[in-house]
Amino acid sequence: MKTWLSIDPQSDFSIYNLPFGIFSSKNHSRRPGMAIGDQVVDLQVLAEMGAFAEEKIPGEVFHQPVLNTLMALPRQQSRWIRMRVQQLLLETEEKESWQENASRWLIPMSDVQLHLPVTIGDYTDFYSSYQHAFNVGSMFRGPENALMPNWKHLPVAYHGRSSSIVVSGTDIVRPMGQRKPPSSEDPVFGVSARLDFELEMAFVVANPTAMGSRVSTAEAEEHIFGLLLFNDWSARDIQQWEYQPLGPFLGKNFGSSVSPWIVTLDALAPFRCEGPVQDPAVLPYLKVNSPGHFDLPISVAIAPREGKEKVISRSNYKYLYWSMAQQLAHHTVNGCPICTGDLMASGTISGESPDSFGSLLELTWGGKNTLDFEGITRTWIEDGDTVVMRGGAGEPGKRVGFGEVKGTILPAKPFC
Amino acid sequence: MKTWLSIDPQSDFSIYNLPFGIFSSKNHSRRPGMAIGDQVVDLQVLAEMGAFAEEKIPGEVFHQPVLNTLMALPRQQSRWIRMRVQQLLLETEEKESWQENASRWLIPMSDVQLHLPVTIGDYTDFYSSYQHAFNVGSMFRGPENALMPNWKHLPVAYHGRSSSIVVSGTDIVRPMGQRKPPSSEDPVFGVSARLDFELEMAFVVANPTAMGSRVSTAEAEEHIFGLLLFNDWSARDIQQWEYQPLGPFLGKNFGSSVSPWIVTLDALAPFRCEGPVQDPAVLPYLKVNSPGHFDLPISVAIAPREGKEKVISRSNYKYLYWSMAQQLAHHTVNGCPICTGDLMASGTISGESPDSFGSLLELTWGGKNTLDFEGITRTWIEDGDTVVMRGGAGEPGKRVGFGEVKGTILPAKPFC
Repeated sequence: MKTWLSIDPQSDFSIYNLPFGIFSSKNHSRRPGMAIGDQVVDLQVLAEMGAFAEEKIPGEVFHQPVLNTLMALPRQQSRWIRMRVQQLLLETEEKESWQENASRWLIPMSDVQLHLPVTIGDYTDFYSSYQHAFNVGSMFRGPENALMPNWKHLPVAYHGRSSSIVVSGTDIVRPMGQRKPPSSEDPVFGVSARLDFELEMAFVVANPTAMGSRVSTAEAEEHIFGLLLFNDWSARDIQQWEYQPLGPFLGKNFGSSVSPWIVTLDALAPFRCEGPVQDPAVLPYLKVNSPGHFDLPISVAIAPREGKEKVISRSNYKYLYWSMAQQLAHHTVNGCPICTGDLMASGTISGESPDSFGSLLELTWGGKNTLDFEGITRTWIEDGDTVVMRGGAGEPGKRVGFGEVKGTILPAKPFC
Repeated sequence: MKTWLSIDPQSDFSIYNLPFGIFSSKNHSRRPGMAIGDQVVDLQVLAEMGAFAEEKIPGEVFHQPVLNTLMALPRQQSRWIRMRVQQLLLETEEKESWQENASRWLIPMSDVQLHLPVTIGDYTDFYSSYQHAFNVGSMFRGPENALMPNWKHLPVAYHGRSSSIVVSGTDIVRPMGQRKPPSSEDPVFGVSARLDFELEMAFVVANPTAMGSRVSTAEAEEHIFGLLLFNDWSARDIQQWEYQPLGPFLGKNFGSSVSPWIVTLDALAPFRCEGPVQDPAVLPYLKVNSPGHFDLPISVAIAPREGKEKVISRSNYKYLYWSMAQQLAHHTVNGCPICTGDLMASGTISGESPDSFGSLLELTWGGKNTLDFEGITRTWIEDGDTVVMRGGAGEPGKRVGFGEVKGTILPAKPFC
């Protein structure tokens, strides 16, 4: 495929990608768009220019401040929108009129602000990386008892907080809370001293299900609109004191960050791969017949307040033990209804080697080691530090990537 | 206070109550209303008749299919709406015109359908009853280790699933899922055999907060619109196998039921009371200076498929260890933002005596005992059984109650 648009071959947003997002600018109200190179496609204007007339896409989907209405279209329609934009960008006979009017519907990305692309209904966080679960379990219970007996039989998950999910670039205020230092008899209240990131991916639900119905592994991907990068910020000291017996709460719900562009599963198709062999065999409702993993390198970097950004871990989405299809089939096997805009995160994705671990908890092994940034060291995230996650795959000119999810930690707010 | 309307003195919906809800009928689109005796106040029609003109309440709040817009009004405005309707119902000089036109704005409750009153953003379930936590902990770990060390220092909570919260009267399909019988080496898949209720109350958030800000215990009640009865249906066998280490998931998220009428804290003021002495003393951010508990008897009854309804437990909202103000102050102390329509449930409310336990798990002590219904017995809920929770307080003619939350269990759906 060749486009008439000039695109940096290193861009995550090649003609093969075309992810969906929400943007605004001085001259544009908040609306749906797509990323292409260093430009944003204004879908509202394209619709007004008649680009989507053929498929009778309801015009209202392009006049919403979130993607939910567009994502709830019949899947063939939202797919068609993406293919149609791809077509307009290609060197074809039709190109001339669209190319001539390009300034009407293509806006430099540097001129726009990107927003949280969906109204998130429910947010679920899985715990689907074997190495991450093993690492965390080893620290807490020793390597012999690292995994709970259920871990290889079902994709463990918990419900998280939707209201504090923000788009990349939003600052995160360091949380305060209760923690119990080992040396203290009683808990103390104060600023979290063990602030961490978690390198995750998340998928967004397109079409909903009714309460009481199930989604099979074979049907699951039809309910998935696409994927995002996800940083599940975690305050380890708060988490450790609060989490038993009902799971993480204030240690997580002060903030989570997503990348702005939703990359569709269609765009990710070339990177589809087999997952790990699952032994013991899973129960029938979790069996899959086709590869449901994706070979997507992901990384995390820290830019310390006073130093230069450095990549501290390189992982891969394919390292997950459980696939999206299995996660969604499990989530709905009891009849739990899913809604357009639900976000389901993978859990921290860690590889086998220490330089692929997806959290500081693992990278510093519970705070025992430090990371070096040209003379500056870090054990946990400090105020003013910025964490950046990136991901994507494909050769230059054909890259399909997520851009980045970035967030800077601001000092805690004292009590007035 | 005396109303010109004829109201059964035993009604939960006395002139002192006036809870908010959402109704529809053959002739009425879904809209906000209030309960009074066996009638529903049509707030939309009252607004059209000019009843709320004095305070300039935006008319749109009465044309919504949920209460969120009304609940997000400045608190003095939503309070004023309730006081204004009370005034219209009183024997006063003004009565005649409103009473003459009563058939325009009062509809027999038997003619309407009641709906989920709010679009729920995030749903949080606390674990705030000491006796419940002690009972469950005793069964799992023995009475010496029943409570986790954090329990008396913070109101333990976890995030739940909003999408499966339904209004009273909605049938609940028995979930299927994984469980591991003690006799089996591996988990098995099938119909849940240990289906339970949990007797809870829930509060609904009125005014939102920004991310990074906190709500103090002193401010908390200003963010609370009112209370509901809440049945947190639970599949104990699924829950037990899945819940470690991240908390309940599929054992809970197949369904939760709420009563249709939101009773305001203003209406509940006469029942305000001191909570239990908290020892050890709580950290400063959890301290309260005024009574934040409410003396509200609540009960749960089962109508077995083939028998007559019988009350099996009588508890009280005042049995909670942690108050709503403490729950909300804790929830936001890390900067977690709350939104209009968020639902926060108390957790199962159990008293000290066995006839006040709030779940079958406790009432049958993990399935060891049975409950008798005139010759019929139950250990767990069976298909076709109906669970009914009721609550309220006050002498006849002045009762402020919740009506009921009711649900019938339908057989599990087999795989096609």
